Amino acid sequence: MSTASDPPMAATAGRPVVGTMIGDPAGIGPEVTVKALADGSVHEVSIPVLLGSAAAVERALDMTGVKARVRRMRSFERPSDDVRVIDVIDTGALPDGVLPLGEDTEVAGHASAQWLDELDALARDGSFAATIMGPISTGSLKMAGKLDKVISPTPGESYLVLLTGPLRVAHLTDHMSLRQVIDVITADLVAKAIGQVNDAMRSWGIARPRIAVAGLNPHATGDEDRLAIAPGVERARAAGIAVEGPIAPDSVFRQCIEGRYDMVLAMFHDQGHIAVKTWGFSGNCVIMMGPPYLHMSVAHGTAYDIVGTGQADAAMMLSAMRTCGQLASGQGFSGDAQ
Amino acid sequence: MSTASDPPMAATAGRPVVGTMIGDPAGIGPEVTVKALADGSVHEVSIPVLLGSAAAVERALDMTGVKARVRRMRSFERPSDDVRVIDVIDTGALPDGVLPLGEDTEVAGHASAQWLDELDALARDGSFAATIMGPISTGSLKMAGKLDKVISPTPGESYLVLLTGPLRVAHLTDHMSLRQVIDVITADLVAKAIGQVNDAMRSWGIARPRIAVAGLNPHATGDEDRLAIAPGVERARAAGIAVEGPIAPDSVFRQCIEGRYDMVLAMFHDQGHIAVKTWGFSGNCVIMMGPPYLHMSVAHGTAYDIVGTGQADAAMMLSAMRTCGQLASGQGFSGDAQ
Repeated sequence: MSTASDPPMAATAGRPVVGTMIGDPAGIGPEVTVKALADGSVHEVSIPVLLGSAAAVERALDMTGVKARVRRMRSFERPSDDVRVIDVIDTGALPDGVLPLGEDTEVAGHASAQWLDELDALARDGSFAATIMGPISTGSLKMAGKLDKVISPTPGESYLVLLTGPLRVAHLTDHMSLRQVIDVITADLVAKAIGQVNDAMRSWGIARPRIAVAGLNPHATGDEDRLAIAPGVERARAAGIAVEGPIAPDSVFRQCIEGRYDMVLAMFHDQGHIAVKTWGFSGNCVIMMGPPYLHMSVAHGTAYDIVGTGQADAAMMLSAMRTCGQLASGQGFSGDAQ
Repeated sequence: MSTASDPPMAATAGRPVVGTMIGDPAGIGPEVTVKALADGSVHEVSIPVLLGSAAAVERALDMTGVKARVRRMRSFERPSDDVRVIDVIDTGALPDGVLPLGEDTEVAGHASAQWLDELDALARDGSFAATIMGPISTGSLKMAGKLDKVISPTPGESYLVLLTGPLRVAHLTDHMSLRQVIDVITADLVAKAIGQVNDAMRSWGIARPRIAVAGLNPHATGDEDRLAIAPGVERARAAGIAVEGPIAPDSVFRQCIEGRYDMVLAMFHDQGHIAVKTWGFSGNCVIMMGPPYLHMSVAHGTAYDIVGTGQADAAMMLSAMRTCGQLASGQGFSGDAQ
């Protein structure tokens, strides 16, 4: 039990305290979370604490056959740091006895929204060094009128980053039509995003990140490449950042895979997503760059159709948990289990 | 020796006669061509005939150590169909004694341009059932003022198709800015391209090609997806073609790799090229769909820096030669050596 005199865990432990929100309680989130914890390797790089419904986590233990004891905490306390104990911060957002399964409900949406708020608050007050969001349901959140709780990438503020082994891609823009993308790209925006990516990667332990910026047009030889992207890259390079670009969009991702860069800044959603999803899904995890702490999630959804069947694959959650621990403690991507 | 009464080879042989232009004589084209022929498997699916400089082919035999005899033909004659003999149609486009190596020259550009004309003429008169263009140099062609000899994909007329194992992508547009791409996409154009892709694939022996059409915007939910691509797909489907789309651009290529489709119609250059080049280069070959015969090329360039060093990898040329033989004889992609 923590006392008022305990310093925040995240700042004192050798391993960072990582808070994982279990995702929508009706989906596979609780299952993949307990399976990932049972692997044991998450504890090697972090001190994991869950946030959500303790009852949903207990049900997930039953469903998966994972042997562990759930310790319900009403608020943040000193974590057990014991692989046989699963700490769950459960403030009662999901009413006792209510355990939706395999479908969207307003009650799950309300609970998910509250858990996301609590996750953010505990990261901001230093209890969590970093956070992971399990698979939520936009359907449930919409029913609860809480879709705004999900961080939506906004150019110049927040960026979606996909990680699959050596292929790492930050996206300048997200769910935006190509027509809008073309108009929104400016040298300012590109330079700002490069700076934010560079700062974030340095905080993860990469001393001098090698950043590649994808062009927009074929062979990176169009007007926007020359008039917006190139000057933006130039400005960032003048500020001392190891950045190159614009690079031909059809070459830059393969160059990253081959180790020439640590991260690609893609200009739009599908540019990066086509590369990542075509190259391979295995081990994908997601960083939402923007909050003042490391915030990750998994690349899959709630998979209602296989909830409770034992088929849910915990690989992505395990990858997120391991990567999150490594990055939050400044170990960079080396030894990455993805 | 053929006589006037011999029917065209391409129409009579069990295996199709495939004409391969050796590429720029100063590049690795002649080397990879003789290496690919030495593999022996090209003869299993085709009767190969080269077109270019017999002297450059002889030099390539010296460079590579491939054992074969060059038989120079002044015009098309009945091929030897003997793995120990390399038939080369050499009309003298490259003056005797002139053998540029490792750099762009006007004389090589003139020769390449003439060979491309001869290749096209021999395909149109039925001597060649299909053709392959070795790696040419746009630099040499430009010096000769003959850059127009290279077929440039034009929406509604010709399409670049990339093949890498199960990932096959036809491109609706090619070297066009994204801004132009957005404006050029219409239901008419999409429907027409689907029809052309379908016809070509049927001629290659795929009875009922399953075609996927990529969307333009994230999740294929933008204006152009709804107003241009969807109606174009609908029209092609109404005409009896097994086509689906628009499909989310970040999912459709992986679905093709997994065997759900035989071909993806990508909306723009990088959409398809990012998928193909990120997934893997090995065995890439290229079809230029548009001429009234199967016309292929390799995905690499002249690689002047390694000419004559023995490093040139013949895998792409071998893949092109084998695939060309299979498709020209209507065997489809099955047994594809890529």
